[in-house]
Amino acid sequence: MAQQERAIRTRRIILEAAAATFDEHGYESTTIAEILERAEVTKGALYFHFPSKGDLARGVLAAAVTRESGRPHALKLQELADALLLLAYRLPREPMLSAALRMAVDPQARRRFGTAWPEWAELMADLLREAKARGEVLAHTDEDAVGRMIVSTWTGVRVVTEGLPGAYDLPGEVALLLRLLLTAVATPAALSRLEISAARAAHLYGDMPGGRAEATGFVPFGITA
Amino acid sequence: MAQQERAIRTRRIILEAAAATFDEHGYESTTIAEILERAEVTKGALYFHFPSKGDLARGVLAAAVTRESGRPHALKLQELADALLLLAYRLPREPMLSAALRMAVDPQARRRFGTAWPEWAELMADLLREAKARGEVLAHTDEDAVGRMIVSTWTGVRVVTEGLPGAYDLPGEVALLLRLLLTAVATPAALSRLEISAARAAHLYGDMPGGRAEATGFVPFGITA
Repeated sequence: MAQQERAIRTRRIILEAAAATFDEHGYESTTIAEILERAEVTKGALYFHFPSKGDLARGVLAAAVTRESGRPHALKLQELADALLLLAYRLPREPMLSAALRMAVDPQARRRFGTAWPEWAELMADLLREAKARGEVLAHTDEDAVGRMIVSTWTGVRVVTEGLPGAYDLPGEVALLLRLLLTAVATPAALSRLEISAARAAHLYGDMPGGRAEATGFVPFGITA
Repeated sequence: MAQQERAIRTRRIILEAAAATFDEHGYESTTIAEILERAEVTKGALYFHFPSKGDLARGVLAAAVTRESGRPHALKLQELADALLLLAYRLPREPMLSAALRMAVDPQARRRFGTAWPEWAELMADLLREAKARGEVLAHTDEDAVGRMIVSTWTGVRVVTEGLPGAYDLPGEVALLLRLLLTAVATPAALSRLEISAARAAHLYGDMPGGRAEATGFVPFGITA
């Protein structure tokens, strides 16, 4: 393996170890020693790529910027739902995403590293505007407010589902959330054509080429410039 | 002041200082020294009432059990909405509530102290069942699932609103959330009679006798036995 390839691989291993540790213990309580132990790399290698714990956090957040979304669809609202369903399927499976959400929810980490919630809310609002232009969204809908509400409620469903006893799976909960919210937002014609289910989330994931689908600009977590 | 009264007052001062400090820095990062400094009581007094930091957390959570709710109302769904609006008005004003929510959202504190989310979700489900029996809720509604969704989404609105730039007030955001969710849940007749607004939240708060209304069994945060 060329030296550069090796460096890229080592960097990725360190980031994944950092994400898993932040996800488990939170940013504040995580020590570099724990990350080193999990990554099984030398201290020198870690400090070469990430001079401080803050750099590790920024690295995890940058890696958590996901540009995947559902495939383009005749219904814009289906694209919106698909992006949120796919994220619900991926998050419990990908420590990078899960750690980024945990850091966003933690007020201290949030103050320090920011969140991509504003960009995420704006993207949702844009999708709602496009959907409205196509006659899929009720005329009285405030796209900015509902976009913000989608981000808030999706986040809450993740946080509370994790804390409730009983095995609630995130795609199922997000599907229910979307069915409830879109009832108040979609026109009856659009609503009757939407497909929103946990099964669809799994199917969308299976369709991702090499586990990473093409960009349609979905940036739920992570740092944006 | 009698000695017992003084002890009760001192205990309350310590709890309020602990809540404000947990709310600001999180449970893990808070030190007893910070609480002492804020409470302006002696170390001996603090340890007499709360032998450990864990006891302080449990004290805050127990104090955050709130039994206030809206007044009884002809519409059960209005009682449900009122409870959630009133809580949205109080939470940013009462560090005890705010600290309890922050501890519930923090996975480490949650593992240690639990949350009252299950009881809260159950109360919401019970209100929905009563509302359905009165013909206010659509027949196909799954009361347990929607009750859980109310707790998840209310919590998410609080967490994300706090983290977004811009001054979103919690009662306004919760009013929007309730209007969206109840559109999918309430019968058209009930929906048209519901009053859901930030102004109503302020009004309900003003109606609380001495700032503390009578019990109708609302237990959103805090430890339950």
